[in-house]
Amino acid sequence: MISASENLARLGLILPDATPPDLPFAPYTLGNGVLIVSGQIPLLHDEVQFIGRVGAEIDLEAAQAAARLCALHVIAQIDAACGGDLERVEQILRVGGYVASAPGFIEQSQVINAASELINAVFGQRGQHARTALGVAGLPLGVAVEVDAIVAIRC
Amino acid sequence: MISASENLARLGLILPDATPPDLPFAPYTLGNGVLIVSGQIPLLHDEVQFIGRVGAEIDLEAAQAAARLCALHVIAQIDAACGGDLERVEQILRVGGYVASAPGFIEQSQVINAASELINAVFGQRGQHARTALGVAGLPLGVAVEVDAIVAIRC
Amino acid sequence: MISASENLARLGLILPDATPPDLPFAPYTLGNGVLIVSGQIPLLHDEVQFIGRVGAEIDLEAAQAAARLCALHVIAQIDAACGGDLERVEQILRVGGYVASAPGFIEQSQVINAASELINAVFGQRGQHARTALGVAGLPLGVAVEVDAIVAIRC
Repeated sequence: MISASENLARLGLILPDATPPDLPFAPYTLGNGVLIVSGQIPLLHDEVQFIGRVGAEIDLEAAQAAARLCALHVIAQIDAACGGDLERVEQILRVGGYVASAPGFIEQSQVINAASELINAVFGQRGQHARTALGVAGLPLGVAVEVDAIVAIRC
Repeated sequence: MISASENLARLGLILPDATPPDLPFAPYTLGNGVLIVSGQIPLLHDEVQFIGRVGAEIDLEAAQAAARLCALHVIAQIDAACGGDLERVEQILRVGGYVASAPGFIEQSQVINAASELINAVFGQRGQHARTALGVAGLPLGVAVEVDAIVAIRC
Repeated sequence: MISASENLARLGLILPDATPPDLPFAPYTLGNGVLIVSGQIPLLHDEVQFIGRVGAEIDLEAAQAAARLCALHVIAQIDAACGGDLERVEQILRVGGYVASAPGFIEQSQVINAASELINAVFGQRGQHARTALGVAGLPLGVAVEVDAIVAIRC
């Protein structure tokens, strides 16, 4: 079986820095083998990317790139929680995908599919997750997409 | 005690097909006795129903019918996860209800109550769930309502 | 270590009544040491407060007051679930914060920070939680903010 780290390398993906900024909440919590990852926004070298609502300032293709970037941050937090050993991931249990949506935009599934497909490509069978995708009125800092997750981890 | 299956029959409800379409995520995940069900939309014979925002194209009564249909799909996924034995359900732990809302619509509780009441009618005391109801800007495929759930299952 | 109850007293906070009104769902569920708290809205003596969308009828400061009031109701439900002994809280695992947002409002983080900071002030290290903050189109009864939580409890 190919490891998640090997898949990341094969896909040319480098995990972003998971160090949390100074915020009044944690990037994740871990209890009883269940990891809860905070909502991740599209950051690149600590700069916010993809600002706007999908269906207006942001088109579908850009929104999918934003969703992939959010998913990469989710994976970076999982990696941090696992002390750098992604093979401790038993199963991605749930992905929540939130799309800042202009009136009339209804392709939230297609946007969040980009996050789901990245997670599947990295974790294989262990990446098969339940999911809820929503179109929201706005997201922190004006970003187009936010993704969170619940993950089963080997203790 | 009346079983969930008997309650479904008594209410004249038939569970829809829970076979997932070809999507990059699973209809549910199950780990350590906790079942997480993906967001379910109002489908009837694989056709999307109740398209529009509540408070505009969709009125309260139609939205409640949509919520009941979503809840029925949640129960169908629980049934599939339990191998057809709904008596393995220990407790519906949480229901998330999402209502595509036109500006000014504030009756999200009344919409999602229709899903909650159906779940209570089927599972009785085991159906008593925590809940969060939200008005969202849009939902996949333009549907008016989406419902997800977390369920404790006997292994 | 200062107890959560002592922190509440030190902050001059009195927990509101956690008795649920007659609703088709429960204020919380508890299974296997995990408490799931339903979405809490800003109530004061059973009267709904802070009605409107943030960025329009409700400004940032009022929204933060609403978020603190929601968080206080979350703590009241945790207290009820723990039989009045908040020292049974092991960890606040996750906070969900939902902000009814006027078009263009993007300070959802600043709003929900008020809830996070209150939870941290009451529970200290045990209050460090994962979080997802969303801007939504509308909330039940027209309130500006809603907060829910997942909590690890000592059985």
